[in-house]
Amino acid sequence: MSIIEFSKRQKKIVEIVKKNQPITSEQIAESLHLTRATLRADLALLTMVGILDARPKVGYFYTGNSIQTFIGDYLHKIKVEDTKSFPVIVSEETTIYDAIVTLFLEDVGTLFVQNKDKYLSGVVSRKDLLKIVVGNQDIHKIPVGMIMTRMPNIVFVHDKDSIYDAALEIMEHEIDSVPVVESIKDQHGEVQYKITGRISKTNITKVFVEIGKE
Amino acid sequence: MSIIEFSKRQKKIVEIVKKNQPITSEQIAESLHLTRATLRADLALLTMVGILDARPKVGYFYTGNSIQTFIGDYLHKIKVEDTKSFPVIVSEETTIYDAIVTLFLEDVGTLFVQNKDKYLSGVVSRKDLLKIVVGNQDIHKIPVGMIMTRMPNIVFVHDKDSIYDAALEIMEHEIDSVPVVESIKDQHGEVQYKITGRISKTNITKVFVEIGKE
Repeated sequence: MSIIEFSKRQKKIVEIVKKNQPITSEQIAESLHLTRATLRADLALLTMVGILDARPKVGYFYTGNSIQTFIGDYLHKIKVEDTKSFPVIVSEETTIYDAIVTLFLEDVGTLFVQNKDKYLSGVVSRKDLLKIVVGNQDIHKIPVGMIMTRMPNIVFVHDKDSIYDAALEIMEHEIDSVPVVESIKDQHGEVQYKITGRISKTNITKVFVEIGKE
Repeated sequence: MSIIEFSKRQKKIVEIVKKNQPITSEQIAESLHLTRATLRADLALLTMVGILDARPKVGYFYTGNSIQTFIGDYLHKIKVEDTKSFPVIVSEETTIYDAIVTLFLEDVGTLFVQNKDKYLSGVVSRKDLLKIVVGNQDIHKIPVGMIMTRMPNIVFVHDKDSIYDAALEIMEHEIDSVPVVESIKDQHGEVQYKITGRISKTNITKVFVEIGKE
């Protein structure tokens, strides 16, 4: 898979550099029986795209980067703060039933739970709720605080993290979304987390579609 | 947002071409007070990346492409068949309760439903199931066939579609996943769909993470 269809000559140059690095443009030109002028544009492109690296008075190096690295860099530059959605927040006292109603009304897959001080204390997913409901428990009495995943077992991201970081957390922990938080020191000097947003697989899919749109 | 940090000169060239297209390399060189030779690498790069287009004997044009288009192309090249997961399939007679158990055992968000001829007939999501269960209906008696989204109201993709196509369908129809199908003509000459896979937001997030991995 590659986007730029590199020319045969460009591929040959990369092969030559791989084998003989560091190598000067004169030496590359020589082994291809071409002039340096002819190679100038190719070398400029390969260097710019990051596949080759040029060091003055030494020559060209192969960086080990592929075109994929290049796209990867792009995903690392998209910030959470630019793509996050509004968080849907309930309190620990909210009943399971009310949580489910909120889930449907807001049309989200995950609810974030905050404690009395309005700091992140838990997360509850559609899957958690379905499990409880099928278990025939009294969903009008049990509060989400009893079934939620509780801090410190919650994965979260900050505004300045990349959407890639968020995607990685979601995949590694097999969850549907992560809360976006702002870290704050409370009156006891302890770090607490204020919920400011939500990044779900939907946000990532949306970024994916936006990038792919022509 | 951009991956390649274009040089000031390259940005100037793009601006000049935008305003004066079609424009020859001599004319660009002239307005920058530079020689054609000096510009050669820049023009080659901008053309290769697809931002400029060169037509012989006419000159350079601005294509309107950005670096984003370039990455988009890449996403269009990743095929559904290379990224799909196994589908989790139930029959129309499966009870809601058994469907929920299957959902948890297989750890998926959506079940695909097939009819007696083993062709795609419906889709049922975690959300559909949660709604029914909260509605206090007898989940041990009601079959998924009664609550599923039914053909022809189902969005699907084929092996040769791109992961981008799948992501677009998922976003446009606000669903969590699409079945991957193979179109087959049945004995009456009608087109039917055999379920061969599943593309969910999880698959898309996975591709996203793989691309971003260095």
